[in-house]
Amino acid sequence: MNQVSALLPWLDYLGIAVFAAAGALAASRKQLDIVAFVFFAGVTAVGGGTLRDILLDVPVFWVRNPNYLAIPLVVACVVYFTAHLVESRYRVLLWADAIGLAAYAVVGSAKTLSIGASPADALALGILTATFGGVIRDVLAGEPSVILRRELYITAAFAGALTFVVLAAAGAPFWTGATLGFLVAFGVRAGALIWGWALPVYRARPGRDSTKL
Amino acid sequence: MNQVSALLPWLDYLGIAVFAAAGALAASRKQLDIVAFVFFAGVTAVGGGTLRDILLDVPVFWVRNPNYLAIPLVVACVVYFTAHLVESRYRVLLWADAIGLAAYAVVGSAKTLSIGASPADALALGILTATFGGVIRDVLAGEPSVILRRELYITAAFAGALTFVVLAAAGAPFWTGATLGFLVAFGVRAGALIWGWALPVYRARPGRDSTKL
Amino acid sequence: MNQVSALLPWLDYLGIAVFAAAGALAASRKQLDIVAFVFFAGVTAVGGGTLRDILLDVPVFWVRNPNYLAIPLVVACVVYFTAHLVESRYRVLLWADAIGLAAYAVVGSAKTLSIGASPADALALGILTATFGGVIRDVLAGEPSVILRRELYITAAFAGALTFVVLAAAGAPFWTGATLGFLVAFGVRAGALIWGWALPVYRARPGRDSTKL
Repeated sequence: MNQVSALLPWLDYLGIAVFAAAGALAASRKQLDIVAFVFFAGVTAVGGGTLRDILLDVPVFWVRNPNYLAIPLVVACVVYFTAHLVESRYRVLLWADAIGLAAYAVVGSAKTLSIGASPADALALGILTATFGGVIRDVLAGEPSVILRRELYITAAFAGALTFVVLAAAGAPFWTGATLGFLVAFGVRAGALIWGWALPVYRARPGRDSTKL
Repeated sequence: MNQVSALLPWLDYLGIAVFAAAGALAASRKQLDIVAFVFFAGVTAVGGGTLRDILLDVPVFWVRNPNYLAIPLVVACVVYFTAHLVESRYRVLLWADAIGLAAYAVVGSAKTLSIGASPADALALGILTATFGGVIRDVLAGEPSVILRRELYITAAFAGALTFVVLAAAGAPFWTGATLGFLVAFGVRAGALIWGWALPVYRARPGRDSTKL
Repeated sequence: MNQVSALLPWLDYLGIAVFAAAGALAASRKQLDIVAFVFFAGVTAVGGGTLRDILLDVPVFWVRNPNYLAIPLVVACVVYFTAHLVESRYRVLLWADAIGLAAYAVVGSAKTLSIGASPADALALGILTATFGGVIRDVLAGEPSVILRRELYITAAFAGALTFVVLAAAGAPFWTGATLGFLVAFGVRAGALIWGWALPVYRARPGRDSTKL
């Protein structure tokens, strides 16, 4: 766990900062005020990890630890005053979200393993931690959820968490698994964003289901 | 509790399997990929029971119990490869949801009573457990929530939970209450699906509220 | 804590009753039946406080305490039979929500401080408790969330919670802080409802972001 202690907080802070940026950018797209920027940044940043901790029945990581709330506060203010500088805020949002997804897939899995739960739990909670920040952000903003898009999203979280969990089970050093898990998740999602990587999607037979009934 | 131990898991697995099918069908209607099928199946299947366990402050039932996650995994794959065979996927979704609703109304109430909480709690948590899987599924899929439809839905969960709780309070054997509770909830919801059973809905005075203000 | 014990339950019951009314009015706007009125009233009334208690890892306040569920039950029935009497149900909903927001900003902060958490936590949880009832209500009803509106909303909860937390830290008597916190939050929200008070909203540069990309 010493290795975990050394690296995990940095991945954790990274994930929080970029998810906070994605949340604040969602607020910017809705033309909200600065207090709403902070709210969206905070809820998006800690949402996935909060769900993870509640499911694991461990103390929620940001309660009694004000540092975690300081990050979205600062990030939201920076975004409020700089978001107009970027060409496409939605692209930046998606890339920030991609980094957060990759960081949280690893952090979620690692925290689950660290309390002695099974690899299957670590996989499930890595995916949930990685994806729910984005889900909550989109629900709050009233936008179609990012998980409904055709490009790989849940799959990226799955690939990263699986990489980390398998390497951990194989006895690889923590930082190897964490780095590779992060890179796999981010790489899959980056391919989805750049080249539109996708799995075959379900299609009903032609001429059927036209009314979605 | 011996009777509970014998029957409750089967109702629980039944509820998970049919809610998983409903979640996977929602993913099929959104033309998502197979990973998203598994995700929707899993979240829909365990969503209501997860909320119940968090509210009761007991360990979440599927954490540290991989069997529960295996069910939506298998069900999602089956749905992915067979959903095109059915005439109307939305009808099948609603019927799967109806069975899940009935099973969870009983399971939610029974688990609440089994930890010594009051009949009022058992009623409230039976309804919440039964309905929140569907609510979460619809929120994730960006569909209007099933609880906004005119036909009886929450009422079916209420009727089933009430039947079980009253029979339990009256000292009826567990399997009697569970079977009757399930049948009442399913019967009410089936009537709603087949014949459009509904309670009188609220209507504002004619000529008023036309703008919904 | 004696002062807390004396005043807090009243603010708590007040918040539950008015949030229940707002939830029932949301059900009326969707033309739902009386069981749905009770469901919407209950979920809206206890939603914010439930999230607060889960985050603080204390027993959820309404579980094992049926009085809390009796309030939304009664309020929902009253609203069902009287809502047609008001000129604009949405205005009444917003005013009920405003009272609930103010009450819960104080109650959320006070409960957080009472278990020994930091002022930063009290501020964050005061805001979350105050705003999430409305968020959940709008998500269930499929309406755009009240936090997306231009007038001050989250800011009102923030101002009220900040007032209470600062006065508590300064050693003011509980009832002074609670009363002033309530009045500040309600006053800010009332100004938003009557005069459209708002903070400057974020705007992208003219001619940019027209497609929201």
